Amino acid sequence: MLKTPYLLFLGDAPDPLAAKVAQGVKDWRPEFALAQHRLHGCKADLGLPEMSIAEARAAGAQTMIVGAANRGGVIAQNWRASLIEACRAGMDVASGLHNQLGDIAELVAAARDAGTRLFDVRVPQDTYPIADGKKRAGKRCLAVGTDCSVGKMYTALAMEKTMRERAMKATFRATGQTGILITGSGIPLDAVVADFMAGAVEWLTPDNDGDHWDLIEGQGSLFHPSFSGVTMALIHGGQPDALVLCHEPTRTHMRGLPHYGLPSLEELRDLSLAVARIVNPEVRVTGISVNTAALSPEEAAECLSAIESRMGLPTVDPFRDGAERLVDALEA
Amino acid sequence: MLKTPYLLFLGDAPDPLAAKVAQGVKDWRPEFALAQHRLHGCKADLGLPEMSIAEARAAGAQTMIVGAANRGGVIAQNWRASLIEACRAGMDVASGLHNQLGDIAELVAAARDAGTRLFDVRVPQDTYPIADGKKRAGKRCLAVGTDCSVGKMYTALAMEKTMRERAMKATFRATGQTGILITGSGIPLDAVVADFMAGAVEWLTPDNDGDHWDLIEGQGSLFHPSFSGVTMALIHGGQPDALVLCHEPTRTHMRGLPHYGLPSLEELRDLSLAVARIVNPEVRVTGISVNTAALSPEEAAECLSAIESRMGLPTVDPFRDGAERLVDALEA
Repeated sequence: MLKTPYLLFLGDAPDPLAAKVAQGVKDWRPEFALAQHRLHGCKADLGLPEMSIAEARAAGAQTMIVGAANRGGVIAQNWRASLIEACRAGMDVASGLHNQLGDIAELVAAARDAGTRLFDVRVPQDTYPIADGKKRAGKRCLAVGTDCSVGKMYTALAMEKTMRERAMKATFRATGQTGILITGSGIPLDAVVADFMAGAVEWLTPDNDGDHWDLIEGQGSLFHPSFSGVTMALIHGGQPDALVLCHEPTRTHMRGLPHYGLPSLEELRDLSLAVARIVNPEVRVTGISVNTAALSPEEAAECLSAIESRMGLPTVDPFRDGAERLVDALEA
Repeated sequence: MLKTPYLLFLGDAPDPLAAKVAQGVKDWRPEFALAQHRLHGCKADLGLPEMSIAEARAAGAQTMIVGAANRGGVIAQNWRASLIEACRAGMDVASGLHNQLGDIAELVAAARDAGTRLFDVRVPQDTYPIADGKKRAGKRCLAVGTDCSVGKMYTALAMEKTMRERAMKATFRATGQTGILITGSGIPLDAVVADFMAGAVEWLTPDNDGDHWDLIEGQGSLFHPSFSGVTMALIHGGQPDALVLCHEPTRTHMRGLPHYGLPSLEELRDLSLAVARIVNPEVRVTGISVNTAALSPEEAAECLSAIESRMGLPTVDPFRDGAERLVDALEA
């Protein structure tokens, strides 16, 4: 969908975390990350070549990615001149922020005049079918979580990277705006109309070679009452052959819902399998990914080892340890 | 949402089944069904007073309901003059068909000039919040099915009717276009954007008296891969206290999916409870509703009795037998 390579626009990001979308591109698709462009006061720095918009265009940049968010998660007023300049220089512009490029009249006019395109990746760009539930060729792995935001996207991206290093056929399939900007395509599943959710996932992960793996980005959690319907559609549209359970061991309640405790990994395993078997009786849980960022190295090692012996499944923090063992389990 | 009473427009419905929306109004909300209006060649007849549009308006009709569907499920070209006439006479017009009243320029102009409103009930009319999963006062009953279209709406409407006859506090909550047209309000859940599905259901079934029951219209099935995400959101947004299992015993495969068999009632019970307990640990399955329309009276009695003894739950066909025993179980 998005043309590459990218110029990563960091704006005046107040800190490195605010530029996490751009950081994600640099980490996972370094070949797309041609250069960065920053405004005065920007506190993020990806260590990429610093280019003006004209320089980046001359160097071959095809799309300027809005790679940062300000505090409101919107396109800031003082960013607009840069976005317009990118259009005039002949680049497409892509954003995953809450307000839309397509609602900024001056920008729309600039893109039209220049013949370039604006991509609001939170807005579905395609028409999706109703799911038909038919078995598709190729293999699929889906990360499911005890909660939202426990590392499902990171896990799938790390597995894809490891698989490609091993010359396995593997494709990360993005289902949210950050993943779409990083990889250049995908579906913003939480913005799809209810009837078409599962069909959108089928569309995203079509027939493929028998030895090809789709690594499908998870969304929400079957145990998160606000978003469980999205997760369900992802499981039934995705028809996973393999599930990886994702968990954050210091979380005390479901994200945003202080009155809901987290399920155990056993509960997540059992409900995910019960639901996934409806579309694929052969589905297996192949591993566990634990986000131990809040733990010391010793605590992390102890936590992973305890979960591994309790659950009888390869258990890693892919950020600390890589995804090798999760991929070994897929190959097994 | 919709103003009552209604003039039920049957158009030139090719047979009685084509007028099932209007029939539903007459069956379940007879107090809303002021009159019918038919075109030449109409093969449906509700037995209501036959009125011209002007007569119906003079008799107090507030809304003309498009109560029939032609073969394409769209608003027929030869119906437009009647819809425009209704607007000009001062009535709102409501439709649940696939194409929209709001896309017919002449009709939009007529409504604007007359100061009347057009309701396309397949289109969400409200902005819904993200679900917060908080416990709400009052009781809720949800019909869940082994498949789509097995009688969930009928079951909930029949239970509401019985409860009102017993002077219990009960409200049918519509989640699809037919239910919305029948009762005048609700949410078209399958047209809601994914992130807001569960929140829409919470919005639909707010806090109520402790002894009040919402009878929530079911959608889809946890076992139907095309629509299971909608069902999941309905369970988690609805926080049911009671589940009624709905089934059609002659169905050989999931509706529209010849490669998927139906789950057993045991599987439906177990998965529905596992999912519903996440939001309400006290939830119970209270009864079973079987659509035996395809069976003879003897076969139906045998089927109901066999299921009842196998499952240990009150089992009825509410169309044949009424919903008394399903309501008894709620009261117990």
